[in-house]
Amino acid sequence: MPPEEFRRYGHQVVDWIADYLAHPERYPVLPDVQPGALLDALPRAAPEQGEPMEAILDDFRRLIVPSITHWNHPGFLAYFATTATPPGILAEMLAAALNVNGMLWKSSPAATELEQVTLGWLRDWLGLPVDNFGIIFDTASISTMHAIAAAREAADPEVRLRGGSRNLVLYTSEQAHSSVEKGAVAIGIGQRNVRKIAADEVFRMRPDMLAEAVERDLASGLRPFCVAPTVGTTSTTSVDPLPAIGEIARRHRLWMHVDAAYAGMAAVAPEFRSLMDGAGQADSLVVNPHKWMGTPVDLSVLYTRRPDILRRAFSLVPEYLRTAQDDRVVNFMDYGVPLGRRFRSLKLWFVMRSLGRQGLAARVREHIAIAQQFADWVRGDPRFELCAPVPLSLVCFRKRGSDEENQALLDCLNRGGEVFLSHTVLNGRFVLRLAIGNHATGLRQVERAWELIRASA
Amino acid sequence: MPPEEFRRYGHQVVDWIADYLAHPERYPVLPDVQPGALLDALPRAAPEQGEPMEAILDDFRRLIVPSITHWNHPGFLAYFATTATPPGILAEMLAAALNVNGMLWKSSPAATELEQVTLGWLRDWLGLPVDNFGIIFDTASISTMHAIAAAREAADPEVRLRGGSRNLVLYTSEQAHSSVEKGAVAIGIGQRNVRKIAADEVFRMRPDMLAEAVERDLASGLRPFCVAPTVGTTSTTSVDPLPAIGEIARRHRLWMHVDAAYAGMAAVAPEFRSLMDGAGQADSLVVNPHKWMGTPVDLSVLYTRRPDILRRAFSLVPEYLRTAQDDRVVNFMDYGVPLGRRFRSLKLWFVMRSLGRQGLAARVREHIAIAQQFADWVRGDPRFELCAPVPLSLVCFRKRGSDEENQALLDCLNRGGEVFLSHTVLNGRFVLRLAIGNHATGLRQVERAWELIRASA
Repeated sequence: MPPEEFRRYGHQVVDWIADYLAHPERYPVLPDVQPGALLDALPRAAPEQGEPMEAILDDFRRLIVPSITHWNHPGFLAYFATTATPPGILAEMLAAALNVNGMLWKSSPAATELEQVTLGWLRDWLGLPVDNFGIIFDTASISTMHAIAAAREAADPEVRLRGGSRNLVLYTSEQAHSSVEKGAVAIGIGQRNVRKIAADEVFRMRPDMLAEAVERDLASGLRPFCVAPTVGTTSTTSVDPLPAIGEIARRHRLWMHVDAAYAGMAAVAPEFRSLMDGAGQADSLVVNPHKWMGTPVDLSVLYTRRPDILRRAFSLVPEYLRTAQDDRVVNFMDYGVPLGRRFRSLKLWFVMRSLGRQGLAARVREHIAIAQQFADWVRGDPRFELCAPVPLSLVCFRKRGSDEENQALLDCLNRGGEVFLSHTVLNGRFVLRLAIGNHATGLRQVERAWELIRASA
Repeated sequence: MPPEEFRRYGHQVVDWIADYLAHPERYPVLPDVQPGALLDALPRAAPEQGEPMEAILDDFRRLIVPSITHWNHPGFLAYFATTATPPGILAEMLAAALNVNGMLWKSSPAATELEQVTLGWLRDWLGLPVDNFGIIFDTASISTMHAIAAAREAADPEVRLRGGSRNLVLYTSEQAHSSVEKGAVAIGIGQRNVRKIAADEVFRMRPDMLAEAVERDLASGLRPFCVAPTVGTTSTTSVDPLPAIGEIARRHRLWMHVDAAYAGMAAVAPEFRSLMDGAGQADSLVVNPHKWMGTPVDLSVLYTRRPDILRRAFSLVPEYLRTAQDDRVVNFMDYGVPLGRRFRSLKLWFVMRSLGRQGLAARVREHIAIAQQFADWVRGDPRFELCAPVPLSLVCFRKRGSDEENQALLDCLNRGGEVFLSHTVLNGRFVLRLAIGNHATGLRQVERAWELIRASA
């Protein structure tokens, strides 16, 4: 496609996006499609000859869009809601066009240095110590896997050569995200060596139970090496007591990896900075700007105060990637598994500059205030009950009644097309989750959600 | 930013991209910047208040672009050259705007089913058996890490629970990409348990040496579990003899993982299909559409004929991600570490449809023909020598003389701004690599490169 044709279609696509962003609520948030419908609608084989862009864009509108779950919809209140802000989209357009691969400093100095600059800025916003080194990965799961591998390297430097790690034990909360366990399984720690420490009545990891488990394992000749607490768990956004956990980590020389993928961003607002108390002591921490911060997926950041260990765990430089050294040069490929690296920092830079700290803090503050308001409505209606504290922008609640009634309530809500909520299980009971995180979501949409919930109930 | 503002800036950005794609050669392919220059040019702290988009776009043009290594430049002949085709860029714009996370079928049916459809199309183009299941990851390194983890799962299903894998041994060529070793180290196989099998005089893994190594390890009580041959090695694009290696793999029940990240795409042209002979027997195979196929980074595809094993290695479904089952539903999160999944298949669909198989085959054919032409020039000039066969679009050559002279030649070429070549080491000698892979690169640019090379020599 010649550049002039790109210009023409590019303008069409921008217009489509602008119209879409102006009215995402024209679409049902969850599409009304059956599994396999798109498989059946598309040809079995790719075309032999190239097709005109008109036909492709037409099929995009006709076949793809109706099969999309609209994460941009202001009624998207499931999982953790996210936002592709317009500045983030503009940056992704440019990154796709530049198409640099930032594996080495030399393979694109701007990609490497902008990653250093923006992650320094973000570190300061989060109140992390200046000795934190940051690196961008695609997802929190991959960031966390790298953190656990670094923890392993710190505990047992021979494992890199020898392989295996049979006696290493990792601790996390029974409320932790599944990515902690998955990362441990991936790198060969073994599910059996992942201890899911009991949480208290408000879903926070219990330090006393952690200390007990570590001591029990030590007495059995096992080797505790890592503890992974969470700031903002996925089920309820509970915040594990980092200072007490950090104390135990220091005593037993455990690597502390903090999962702040969702809630870390709240620290941009000074009044929520205290959520991160104790995070400064962490050996590593993950936070996802693609969650609450307005960058399009994917962009996860891993911070570590021990980049030398992370590098030791992953650096392998073959001749064809060797470049002249300079002490100001960082080659990010040395700090992880992925060699290829998309220019992800560009969208972070656009979003941080376009919204500013105060702009982002205002969104966080508003979302949290709306969640408190919604929680009040739930408290005020005897047909419903809150199922967890609401420290952030997620509300866990249920209709008083059976799990089946609550599942039916959820299904009914989600079929309507105006809102999409998800669920979890707390204390053995089915619970609805209403998560506010999309920048387009305001009080109005949440009021409407409450109206629908009461009507469906 | 209101949608109308996005529209305005979106049009500006499209115009910038169209101008850029029309003339990437206006920029030096390698920027003339010192390490740290961008670090010094940008503010130490992020802005408190949001800034106008004019200022951000202005800084992008003024500070970022001059610090970019231009992978779009037709003189980019380093590493493996890649292309962000205009249809791929259009698709990335739409994917950024939709911002779906395809972790589950439900979280975006279109993202899941388009991944199934396009990977089925691509499988057929590559001539792989229809029982191959495909999944998109960001990079070949991550794809390969997953393949090795699946191989481990197949060899030792208890490792998932128990951890460790002390006696498992993996085989690859001394010419294999570093990602094979890195993947093995990451998942805890241990560097010591990675055997780098000697290559023959044209850099292909020697099956006799592989068989010997496997038998020696078996005799020592070790457990051979995986062999990773390459179709198109990074240093020279040599092609390992898959049929003979497959035979050994079958005999010893090794998982065969084929790294076809670069060269697999050549199979879209029927006359190069034979490069993949024996790939149909592989347990898994990685190919990177973001290399030769015109999709912007990142997009790597892992195929496996044993998706049940891959799933068993990685599936962990917490309650908050549990959805109603349907036998036509694939939840891609079950097949790997990353939970979040960007809508990457959209750009694959755009590119495959816009160029068609014949359009892509024409690019591959032209690039290979130009490389043969360049190799002829090298052969015809007594000052130079070819250092490896040229089966594809990469030429390894050197000036007859010392390594220092060749390093100086490379530095001189790359300083000029018209071309960017990289290097490798073969048989202990420093060798220049000229890699043709950008869709904008034609005979004219390679003629010019040869002119510059002769002049610099």
